[in-house]
Amino acid sequence: MAQSELRRNLITKRWVVIATERNRRPSDFHHDRVPTNKLKEDSHSCPFCPGNESLTPKTILEYSGGASWKTRIFPNKFLALAIEGNLNKKRDGIFQTMAGRGAHEVIVATPSHKTVYDLSNEEMTDALWSFKERILDLRKSLDEDGEPKIQYIIVFGNQGEAAGATKEHAHFQLVGLPVVPSASRIEFINCEEYWENENVCLFCELVKQEHREKSRIISENENFLSIADYAGRFPFETWILPKNHLPLFEDGTPEKMRSLAEAFTDIVSRLGKTLNYPPFNIYLRNTPIHERSHDRYYHFYLKIVPHLTEPAGFELGTEFHINPVIPEKAAEYLRESK
Amino acid sequence: MAQSELRRNLITKRWVVIATERNRRPSDFHHDRVPTNKLKEDSHSCPFCPGNESLTPKTILEYSGGASWKTRIFPNKFLALAIEGNLNKKRDGIFQTMAGRGAHEVIVATPSHKTVYDLSNEEMTDALWSFKERILDLRKSLDEDGEPKIQYIIVFGNQGEAAGATKEHAHFQLVGLPVVPSASRIEFINCEEYWENENVCLFCELVKQEHREKSRIISENENFLSIADYAGRFPFETWILPKNHLPLFEDGTPEKMRSLAEAFTDIVSRLGKTLNYPPFNIYLRNTPIHERSHDRYYHFYLKIVPHLTEPAGFELGTEFHINPVIPEKAAEYLRESK
Repeated sequence: MAQSELRRNLITKRWVVIATERNRRPSDFHHDRVPTNKLKEDSHSCPFCPGNESLTPKTILEYSGGASWKTRIFPNKFLALAIEGNLNKKRDGIFQTMAGRGAHEVIVATPSHKTVYDLSNEEMTDALWSFKERILDLRKSLDEDGEPKIQYIIVFGNQGEAAGATKEHAHFQLVGLPVVPSASRIEFINCEEYWENENVCLFCELVKQEHREKSRIISENENFLSIADYAGRFPFETWILPKNHLPLFEDGTPEKMRSLAEAFTDIVSRLGKTLNYPPFNIYLRNTPIHERSHDRYYHFYLKIVPHLTEPAGFELGTEFHINPVIPEKAAEYLRESK
Repeated sequence: MAQSELRRNLITKRWVVIATERNRRPSDFHHDRVPTNKLKEDSHSCPFCPGNESLTPKTILEYSGGASWKTRIFPNKFLALAIEGNLNKKRDGIFQTMAGRGAHEVIVATPSHKTVYDLSNEEMTDALWSFKERILDLRKSLDEDGEPKIQYIIVFGNQGEAAGATKEHAHFQLVGLPVVPSASRIEFINCEEYWENENVCLFCELVKQEHREKSRIISENENFLSIADYAGRFPFETWILPKNHLPLFEDGTPEKMRSLAEAFTDIVSRLGKTLNYPPFNIYLRNTPIHERSHDRYYHFYLKIVPHLTEPAGFELGTEFHINPVIPEKAAEYLRESK
């Protein structure tokens, strides 16, 4: 009986169970699922299609191109966080509270009624560039006391209903938070500790080690490396990282953004082919927008996480995850899928 | 426009967005879901029914009662962790690995083919007592070097397919881990910090504050308090806590176990009635089995988490959760459901 393995990397320091014995093939995850790149909604009533702009809040930013806009950003209709008001930080006994102040925007990535699976490199490059513009703009928002309103910005996307998408038309969301989320904070703490001990950036070390070991590399281009995470929590979880030291997403040049868009569409296409167009989530984890001390030892990155398994009591209780696909095998499947 | 609120308690120190504006009623979560207390599988082929013991690995522990056993424990057929072998801790560059050594057991809580929703107080008392017996036994396992094989034990349960249950016959699972999971570690660190500053147990403070504020109390009995978590990540997430300082689950007397079983079946019944028998997860978070320094400032507890929403890109990226039901409202609905 093959024994399972516990793994972690020093960036998250979070243990993961790699269940070698349950080792699953891609077809084990096809289920009876309808491929999520197949369109179900009617484009006439789609609020993200050109002509239906009146169904959404007012435009914050748009790129024009030919017959309509190419990329369009507006506030989310169902705001999780709003930019107005005071933070009103309060403590009451062992509880703390503050107002949900921040930003919550929707980025429609294409005028065409199609899913993220069908975004072109050009459309994705524009979307990435719009993230950068919004981050640079939100970085400037200050409250009455001259304090930054937003401490951290996350950009994410959901493909397919099971992954939380309520609209199929390709879009991303940006949320500006008044605090740095603990998931990122833990990475900064670990990377800082490594920096202090070793005087090198842990992400630069990761890139070096992945190049040396090769087994987890799925693809790469001039600027970005796409790998299976050694201690990935989810099957076929894929990590896209800058190959050279680049802590801030918003420092990305047009050339870097093009490169990242290519890496992204490449991975999305491989996941689609290998796993029959599963639902997935993506997120962009970045350095905080004001704390610049982390720039020495952090790289922004994209994670693409297919939604293939459901977390249950074990995962909730321990925040350990059981990954039924060995990351090196996942990389192999995805590498061979083109 | 009502603004949402960010909340956290000092135990986890994890911010949660309480989306007041999306404030949902219980019926918003009924969907078209089939109530999970309705049986679908055939008891004849159920490996957890008496007479079918040969379909499972060998019994570790059973309580006898009348015609058949009452509670039965055996190793999980699909072991995530196994008790044999060496840990083989290794570091390779920025990666760390060890063998998946530990324990993984199934506790069948009743000889009757029925779901957790239908467990009696007596059956649940026996199940809790069996958890205690297994914890006390596993605490003793040592490796060749006389080192403890297991550092932490989690007991959990999944009700309904959507919550990860593969069998509907009421059962729980126990996993013994070779490391303390970070979800628990963070709570110990926070509680220790509070203890050092204030010289009181943070959980004792929580119980006091909940009694003072009353708004989050769902029910209570002589020994246990059932509350909506002030900073609950999931709608209708319910917390069952010892009212008096009781750090170790396995220190529970027969009377305490009976009390906890009553609190548990009470909450499960309220969740069922209020939310149309949704899928849910439960877990028992306990002090580590060997580190006794945490006993001063920690209480073991049960969490019951209905599976009503799907985490998406935002939750994955930030580990912030958006809870669309104000905990005080959730407590009100559950309080009134009897």
